[in-house]
Amino acid sequence: MNTTELIRKKRNGLQLNKAEIEYLIENYTNGSIPDYQFSALLMAILLKGMSSTETTVLTHSMLNSGKVIDLSSLKGFKIDKHSTGGVGDKTSLVLAPIVASAGIYVPMISGRGLGHTGGTLDKLESIPGFRTDLSLSESKKVLKKCGAVLIGQTKEIAPADKFIYALRDVTATVESIPLITASIMSKKLAEGIDGLVLDIKTGNGAFMRSNRDSIELADSLIQTAKSFNKRVIAFITDMNQPLGNYIGNWLEVYESIRLLQGKVRNDLFTLSVKLAGAMIYLGKKANSVKEGEQIANQQINNGKAFNKFLEIVELQGGDINYINNPDKYPKPKYLKKVHSVENGFINEMNTYQIGMASLELGAGRRTKDDVIDHKAGIVLYKKIGGFINKGGIICELRSDSKAKIKTAEQMIFNSIRFSRTKPSIPKLIKKVIL
Amino acid sequence: MNTTELIRKKRNGLQLNKAEIEYLIENYTNGSIPDYQFSALLMAILLKGMSSTETTVLTHSMLNSGKVIDLSSLKGFKIDKHSTGGVGDKTSLVLAPIVASAGIYVPMISGRGLGHTGGTLDKLESIPGFRTDLSLSESKKVLKKCGAVLIGQTKEIAPADKFIYALRDVTATVESIPLITASIMSKKLAEGIDGLVLDIKTGNGAFMRSNRDSIELADSLIQTAKSFNKRVIAFITDMNQPLGNYIGNWLEVYESIRLLQGKVRNDLFTLSVKLAGAMIYLGKKANSVKEGEQIANQQINNGKAFNKFLEIVELQGGDINYINNPDKYPKPKYLKKVHSVENGFINEMNTYQIGMASLELGAGRRTKDDVIDHKAGIVLYKKIGGFINKGGIICELRSDSKAKIKTAEQMIFNSIRFSRTKPSIPKLIKKVIL
Repeated sequence: MNTTELIRKKRNGLQLNKAEIEYLIENYTNGSIPDYQFSALLMAILLKGMSSTETTVLTHSMLNSGKVIDLSSLKGFKIDKHSTGGVGDKTSLVLAPIVASAGIYVPMISGRGLGHTGGTLDKLESIPGFRTDLSLSESKKVLKKCGAVLIGQTKEIAPADKFIYALRDVTATVESIPLITASIMSKKLAEGIDGLVLDIKTGNGAFMRSNRDSIELADSLIQTAKSFNKRVIAFITDMNQPLGNYIGNWLEVYESIRLLQGKVRNDLFTLSVKLAGAMIYLGKKANSVKEGEQIANQQINNGKAFNKFLEIVELQGGDINYINNPDKYPKPKYLKKVHSVENGFINEMNTYQIGMASLELGAGRRTKDDVIDHKAGIVLYKKIGGFINKGGIICELRSDSKAKIKTAEQMIFNSIRFSRTKPSIPKLIKKVIL
Repeated sequence: MNTTELIRKKRNGLQLNKAEIEYLIENYTNGSIPDYQFSALLMAILLKGMSSTETTVLTHSMLNSGKVIDLSSLKGFKIDKHSTGGVGDKTSLVLAPIVASAGIYVPMISGRGLGHTGGTLDKLESIPGFRTDLSLSESKKVLKKCGAVLIGQTKEIAPADKFIYALRDVTATVESIPLITASIMSKKLAEGIDGLVLDIKTGNGAFMRSNRDSIELADSLIQTAKSFNKRVIAFITDMNQPLGNYIGNWLEVYESIRLLQGKVRNDLFTLSVKLAGAMIYLGKKANSVKEGEQIANQQINNGKAFNKFLEIVELQGGDINYINNPDKYPKPKYLKKVHSVENGFINEMNTYQIGMASLELGAGRRTKDDVIDHKAGIVLYKKIGGFINKGGIICELRSDSKAKIKTAEQMIFNSIRFSRTKPSIPKLIKKVIL
């Protein structure tokens, strides 16, 4: 096969067949096709699209570039959740213990934070000792023992995706529905799962800013999952304000602990119960999502979800003293409360900007090599629709650097708009797609 | 400036400004922007297009990546012709002496053959001793002395084009009107010319297969040339059959000699006189193209064009014995006449395939490193509209290899269609655009 001719074919808007896509992925992964040809192909795919058949074949090729974890020895349903990412989104941390405690296996492979969004791995690693770099055989042991495991992408899993993603990042070819679909699904399918719940974040703090794009992505992901015979439900959820009230790595673990202890009743709680309910339903432990939600609630209330979290943390090497006594966790040098300079309802939050303020405080990464301060971050006292008097507290900023707090404070002021009248609160769950 | 953001801008169909295009060309040429980013940009340009302003700026940046030859010390008009290439197209070889003999400078920079088309440099180098690799100062001396010089692209001329072209070739980004325009014009403008005649070949042996594409390219080239204050005329001409009757390097020099001696009156002659007429008109030695054609004719008939050719060949180191006595040129081992197996008029010629047959015989290159046999090629006895009896001669194949002749013969049979009734002959000059 001739690579240039295949690029030309896609460039002309034609469909690539199975053998052609397999040739391209195999030879790019083994280094026979150079980056400069593959990036031209990626741009042609971004601009000319791919059919759902092509997307499925692409996913299949990328999946097969590495190992698919064989979990057939574990009897029972295996499920995961994927979120397209946002600010304050720590649902993975609570879903794994809730769903595992309900008797469904949850083999989770997560990523790191970059830019305005955090990453599950970074959050977990804020727990002293917690290891996210378990080998596949170690992971399987943990999964077998406690029903859940939370690790990072290993070299063995979908290496094609790793190479392709790095190239997309520097060639303006990230925002392509078929490429995003194949990237997500090749990694998720490698986990050996039977079902998947998708959380497509939409709004000013998300990758997808419009409902239309989110629905298109959800449809593409669902079609691909189904073509691999996986049970799947997608939720289009709001990201026009941070999820929950805590942003930053340890702070998000903290909020998760409190949620699992039944002490949190905010939007994070509502969404977590909904997603857990869907996972429990797909995992065949409930007859509907609603029934699944009831089970999720019950697993929180009876303490089983929290105990499962302790079990997971311990099995992955984490120090459970901090889980049992989260207030003992070291504090940053500076804790600065941000006071409102006006009276009014919070009307609008620039969620992207709030994520960047958290990064500024030390909780995030500008480039892959940046080091994270696990203690840093933001505690939101109010969210959209909340009323604040002049002088009242909007949020608390946490950092080891006074200068960074000053910068972040300004960013917070710039991110928040007030109104005289009570605004409508963005609908948390915008759409459910089966 | 951020390269990824510039790729994104073009990908989204927006216009790049002067500073942005200059940044991209400068940094690609000096190696700061890697191939994989530039190829994504090229694909975005191919699929999203460029405005005429962008194309002009691109041309300007590529031109300025190297040296612009300063011919201001030579008083008088300087003109060149550019053809987009075809099979049997040797007009450069006759235009340079005709136009120079009429008192206009012709500084010609030409290319080599690749695939089904031949290259002027290869044709000239079939003349023993002929040097196409003159330095710029040597070229200027030859130009000053005899009014014309025919050389290859030096490293000093538009290096950006060299790098970009090599990348386009392997990333399916050749067929882009703005990229083709900038590539052609950056090299031609570097010659220090005042005017340019364009020959846009159209048909089954040309790069442009449709009239519409050819007109679009002609318009783009003309607009760009005019924005640099150059006098310009474009011709859309037929390439649905080879031009003239000889294909192959020395064979094309041979036909050129015969034409300059007034012994050829075929389509090659008609087109050469037309193009020469336009060059003489643009060069202000005639008041119209028609008057220019009369002068061209006269320069052939009075022997001055042929004498000018001798002069050029001698000044560039070529052995003029072969020009004066072309029949002394060595012959290939095998000269095989191809006989028709049916009666009829030639109705259709697959010109691309005939070019490939010539390549097969040894006259062309599959890859840049292939060695050419200057003696090899094809002599067409008949062209479209010509009648051949069963057993009559279609053409003669010349090669040192019997096996290659056998393959080429089959290719010729596959390339030619016959009809019972006399077909209409493709119009040679389809359109003139000023």
